[in-house]
Amino acid sequence: MPAIRLSATEIEAALASSDLSAWRLKNGKLHREYRFANFVDAFGFMSSVALHAESKNHHPEWFNVYGTVIVDLTTHDCGGVSARDLDLARTMESFAKRATRS
Amino acid sequence: MPAIRLSATEIEAALASSDLSAWRLKNGKLHREYRFANFVDAFGFMSSVALHAESKNHHPEWFNVYGTVIVDLTTHDCGGVSARDLDLARTMESFAKRATRS
Repeated sequence: MPAIRLSATEIEAALASSDLSAWRLKNGKLHREYRFANFVDAFGFMSSVALHAESKNHHPEWFNVYGTVIVDLTTHDCGGVSARDLDLARTMESFAKRATRS
Repeated sequence: MPAIRLSATEIEAALASSDLSAWRLKNGKLHREYRFANFVDAFGFMSSVALHAESKNHHPEWFNVYGTVIVDLTTHDCGGVSARDLDLARTMESFAKRATRS
């Protein structure tokens, strides 16, 4: 099923929900900056996300240096943000909470 | 042992060697853009590098989207490029060759 591009209003409504409050729309992409205690926590998080992303065939754009992971999510198929990006953002939030706890 | 900042001349001499010919100096950092066939190859490469980087306590700055991995190397301690960056660049080249082959 092709991805459907969400409107700015739809995206803002989703980002207003408590589970995605740390995300914002930046340059047309879902944007979030994570700060982990160190590289092991940061790359452990990225590895969890990578396995999930590959299984969904929906991958992030991300930058990492030491404990910092900066993420931008967009859906190439529809040229914007789709429900797939919201799903991936929610999964990343749940993985990040685990990483912080360990 | 603290890292020693290399001069531009020393860096250019190192980059002229055949094993680092794909690297260049950009914004004061060692820079290289890798293109892998897909995300599995790209993240597999990153995972190998991550384990090595952590063992050396010397980590890259890198950006990934799908099969692309863009790397910048610098040494925080000395505020420039050191032999540690050249070593990491050479290790990344050897890991990238393996990834491409698989």
